[in-house]
Formats: sequence, structure tokens, C-alpha cells
Amino acid sequence: MKIETNIFDFDEGIVLENGTKLSSFKLMVETYGELNESKSNGVLLCHAFSGNHHAAGKNADGLVGWWDQLVGPDKAIDTNKFFVVCCNNLGGCSGSSGPTEINPLSDEIYGKNFPQVSVEDWVNSQKMLSDRLGISKWHLVVGGSLGGMQALQWAISYPDFVNKAGILAAAAKSSTQNIAMNEVARESIRKDPNFCNGDYIKNNKRPKDGIKAARMLGHITYLSEKHMNLRFGRKYQEEGSKVSGNVDFEVENYLQYKGEKFSESFDANSYIIMTKAMDGYDIATDSKTLEKNMANIKASLLIIGFNSDWLYPPARGKEIQIAAINQNIKSSYIVLDGEQGHDSFLFHSEKYSKAIKNFIGS
Amino acid sequence: MKIETNIFDFDEGIVLENGTKLSSFKLMVETYGELNESKSNGVLLCHAFSGNHHAAGKNADGLVGWWDQLVGPDKAIDTNKFFVVCCNNLGGCSGSSGPTEINPLSDEIYGKNFPQVSVEDWVNSQKMLSDRLGISKWHLVVGGSLGGMQALQWAISYPDFVNKAGILAAAAKSSTQNIAMNEVARESIRKDPNFCNGDYIKNNKRPKDGIKAARMLGHITYLSEKHMNLRFGRKYQEEGSKVSGNVDFEVENYLQYKGEKFSESFDANSYIIMTKAMDGYDIATDSKTLEKNMANIKASLLIIGFNSDWLYPPARGKEIQIAAINQNIKSSYIVLDGEQGHDSFLFHSEKYSKAIKNFIGS
Repeated sequence: MKIETNIFDFDEGIVLENGTKLSSFKLMVETYGELNESKSNGVLLCHAFSGNHHAAGKNADGLVGWWDQLVGPDKAIDTNKFFVVCCNNLGGCSGSSGPTEINPLSDEIYGKNFPQVSVEDWVNSQKMLSDRLGISKWHLVVGGSLGGMQALQWAISYPDFVNKAGILAAAAKSSTQNIAMNEVARESIRKDPNFCNGDYIKNNKRPKDGIKAARMLGHITYLSEKHMNLRFGRKYQEEGSKVSGNVDFEVENYLQYKGEKFSESFDANSYIIMTKAMDGYDIATDSKTLEKNMANIKASLLIIGFNSDWLYPPARGKEIQIAAINQNIKSSYIVLDGEQGHDSFLFHSEKYSKAIKNFIGS
Repeated sequence: MKIETNIFDFDEGIVLENGTKLSSFKLMVETYGELNESKSNGVLLCHAFSGNHHAAGKNADGLVGWWDQLVGPDKAIDTNKFFVVCCNNLGGCSGSSGPTEINPLSDEIYGKNFPQVSVEDWVNSQKMLSDRLGISKWHLVVGGSLGGMQALQWAISYPDFVNKAGILAAAAKSSTQNIAMNEVARESIRKDPNFCNGDYIKNNKRPKDGIKAARMLGHITYLSEKHMNLRFGRKYQEEGSKVSGNVDFEVENYLQYKGEKFSESFDANSYIIMTKAMDGYDIATDSKTLEKNMANIKASLLIIGFNSDWLYPPARGKEIQIAAINQNIKSSYIVLDGEQGHDSFLFHSEKYSKAIKNFIGS
């Protein structure tokens, strides 16, 4: 599989949904496979909250991409046939313009001054990337969770530029409970004294403790209760392998380990920006307006929900499907069991891969 | 209603489940109504995680008790008929021996050195209180959530001393997800720099930020998703009434407000002890052993679950009911809707109050 990683500079800048203008910006982009002559085999992957441009294969650090189970030669999204593109979203912390990057206007790190972006902003910046790549119509735009929101928004914002949209473990808006969970996570980050009111980089600090607690909570929402119970139950952690002296149960050790690891790499300001974008997303305030806003969609939709997902349960996908039906949009709605809770969208299963493969080929 | 608040000293001490001995201890106790001559009208209320001895009426600060909607003259638990007793549990922070009290052996605040207590320890200390009160058999022992675990444990530990046990919004053990949520809360507390490794009182500090984040998470688990959605939805908080500049949505404002308020009064070491006691409770590792451990119960049981409760959902009550049936224990299992999620056990509703009243009178 041919993999290329490139930075694309957009010196024309972008006006964000909230009115702020980024006078210029850059996107970190990874591509898999090759664009055909008619430029009709493009597949755009939209990443979830903590994802990035590295979706498949191994990178220089030996790290496997977040969707490697489904993207590659002969996989559900077949890189022998398709030119697959994934970019780190604006506001992220993996090379695209965001809080950890230099503000070209001030030559200082953006830090807390990076503006709040939205799902719509990401889609608009991805559209600029499409133009740069010369792709006038994506064969497929697809993503899970926050990525699914982007796929849906693509179909709404650019109806003539999307052939198919795959909306996986996603919703047309964040729920009250989604917002509440994210606010607790942000509270942990903001109250970490090393957060320095968002200026931690300037102060040579990192609010690791806050990010860790936030991610521990995140992991509870990503796993299903059933899966958590099957995997850990009430088993006690063995003495020699405790990552912290306060740990009693295996599940505590797992969360401590996962949280600590994540806190070493993810940026706190990005965490806040990404979750605020997620919370803020709402195609409509009620189903009627959801329909109205979906009225212009020309793409056919594949909506997949997972029974074990309690962050964006299947009922949220169903809302999108009902609106699609009422607007005569070609759409399929599939509910799979998914052993991994919300995270099920990341993992291969026969039914799941087949559903995506069939949708691409249909 | 006659209300008395007293401290009971137990100079004989108590050996805890983990082997530690408290050479002496005290319990802060509140009573409502009057004990009859035959001492047969005693009702013991067991409080939940953050509750205390003040269950009904108004205290000196004008604060209404946590179960005032159900306890009082002519209420579900009628103080005209019953002598109702409630004590702050060992390890709490409302006057009973706990981390904020003086260790009589050292004349210093216990702080982080207060030993880990268990549900069984609470029941044993409450049994000592019963003896002191001269109550040889409680007409009813009842509680919700962690209080329900104590009521169940009373029926198991002291089968001859309990006539009826009311187990409300409770479970025979904490689930993996319960433990996981509590661990995130404890993580927030421990990593607050003002926690000082548990020695914050000595250092004249209070880990308010950590307790606040912990309680915000708690409130998400106490409310049902449906109730949260109905109450707050995706409504934005008005500018003038935001409790923090980072707040966008009403639900964020609510959590910030509730968390802040709680952090002003509750003790961090108590938070850790109480949640560890909750996590550690498990009558059995499987339903067969649950049955075995319930075999000696002589009390009749009322088990109530609430459909909107996702912390201890009705299925957890059903497990207790099934074990009771298999052991020929007289028991009733009722599932109510409960608009308040897990917290529904605190609030009066006609069906709920009637169920408890009928059970007491049956």
C-alpha cells in the first residue's frame, strides 16, 4: 500500500463559523493508494475526537493507524481500488493548525488562543483540501463518532461533492449526557494547576493529571457496560502489576494505565476544542428541522449503530434514518451488536466490514 | 415530631472487617418520634454515600433532612407510630468517627489514617447502637443505594434482629462500571494538589477542585439520561447566570453549581473511604453464592428498583429477588418509573410512598 504523509498549506486562510478568520492554516494529510485518472476513486476518512491523519498502515514510529482493521489492500475500504485520504482536523494536535502549532501572525504557539472550531469548519477545510487534490466528488466520505458527524455534514454542506456518506456510531447532535460527560472532563483539565489557564506550553508545563482523569472518564463511555463486565468483572488486580498503589480492581488499573498513556501525548487545549466542537454540533433542534436541513442531500447514506454503544446509541442513528426516509434520501440503517461499545466502529467484524464494502460497491 | 441529635460513645471499640481495631468510636445519631414501651417500633434508616444522620425535619441550620419527603408525621415512615433512628456512618464526615475527627489515641485528626471501613462494619456498629438503645429487633431497616446494601446486610448479618428490610435502588454488589466511575472520581480528588496525599487538614488546605469534579461526575450518574434531557436538553445558559466563564450549556452550569456547593462541605478522605466501601461490597461472586449467603435471612424483604436508574438499575434488584425466592425468603420486588434516575429513591411519589407504607404495615 502506497502511503504518503504531507502538510498542505492554505495561505488563503479560512473564515470559521464563529466569525474568526485564520489568515492561513495547514493540514497534516495522509493518503493510501493512488488517485485514478478520472479522480473518481477518492475516499475521505473523517477522524473521531482523539484520532488524527494516521488512519492505516504503520507510521515511522511503528504505530498502526486507527482504522487499519478496515482500511488497506483487500480490506473493507480497499486501497487497491480507492485513493483514501485522511487529515488531522483543525484544532487537533497532530500537525494541522491547532493549539500546539505556531500562529504565523505572532510567531508564537497558539495555545489557548487557537479559535473554537466546529464540525462545519472541519468540513469546509476538508473541502479546500479536496479542491487542492483535484477531487471534485468523493466516492465516499466516512467516519465514526465525531467523524460520522463530519460525514453527515459533508452530505449536507456539499451535496454535489459526495457520492456516498458513511455515518457510523454517530448522531445528528450531542445529547445532554454527552455534553455533561465532556464538561466533567474539561473541568479536570482546567483545574489541573499545570494547565496555567491554557498557557502551559509557554510555562513549560503539561496538565497531565487533568488529561489523565478526563481520558479515564472517556474510556468508561467508550466501552459498553457489558463488555467492561465481561472483561474485568470484579477481579482484583494482582499486587505486582498495579500501576498505582491506590488500585484494587483490574478495571481501575486499566483506566489508570490508559489515562496515563493518553496524557503523555494529547494536548489539553485540543481536548477542550474538540469536545466543545462535539457538544456544539446539532443539525437541528427537533426532528422536523433535522429533516429540513437534510433536504438537499444527494448522497446515499449508510448509517450504522451498535447495540453496545451508550455514547451514541443506535436510536441516534435511527433519527437520521427517519429524517432521510422522509426526505426521500437513499439510505440504509444497520444495527450491529458490537462487542466494544462505542469503540466498535473502530474494529473489524465480518458483518461490519461487509456492510461497508457492499455500500462502497453498490 | 420529636427530634433528638446525640453523640453515642463506644469505648469498647470495634474490630473492623480488614482487621484494624478502632479502640473507641463515636456515632452521631438523630432520632424522630418516640420508642414505645415494648421497644418494638424501631425503624433504622441507613444513609447513602454522601448522606448523614440528618434524615428528616429541619436541623439547627435550617437544612431539611435527606429523606424528609418520606419520614415524618403521617408520611410513609410515620414518626407518630415509629421511633426512627439514623446515624452518620463510620468514616463519614458529619460527626461520627471519621477522617475529620480526632483520633483519641494520638489526639490528632485521623485524616488519611482513618481505616477503610466496609458495609459490614457499618452494620456491626449500627448493631452496637441498637444494643445501646435497647432495641433487640428493628421493625424495619431501610435505605437506598449504599443504604440499601446496609439494609440487605443487616438481614444477612443479624437475621434475628430485623423484622423487615427495605432495599431501595440498590444491588448485592457494585458493578464494574460503578467501580470505574468511582475510580475516576477518586483520581480527581487524589490529583488535586491541595489533597496533600490525604494530609490536607494538617496543611490547612482543602482539595475542593478534586471533590467538585468528582461530584459533577456523580451527578451524571444520579440523574437519568431522559430526565437530564427533559430538564436541560441542549439549552444554552443565559449570560448573566453563568457560574463559570467556560459554561455554554445549562447542564454544564448545573453540574458546576452542584459540584462547587458539595465541595464546600464534604470531606475528601471520607469521599474515598465511602466509595471504596461501596466498590468493595459484594455479597457473592455469583448468584449461587448470593443465594447461599442470603440463606439465613428471616426478615421479609421489599426490593424497589427504578427504571430511570442507571447506577443500580432494576435488574440488580431482581438478582436479589431471585435469590430470595430460591431461598423461600418472603420478598416483594417492585419496579417504579422514577423520574429522578438513581436519586428517585429520595423523592416521594404516590406509588413509592404507598409501597413502603404498605410494607411497614403488612
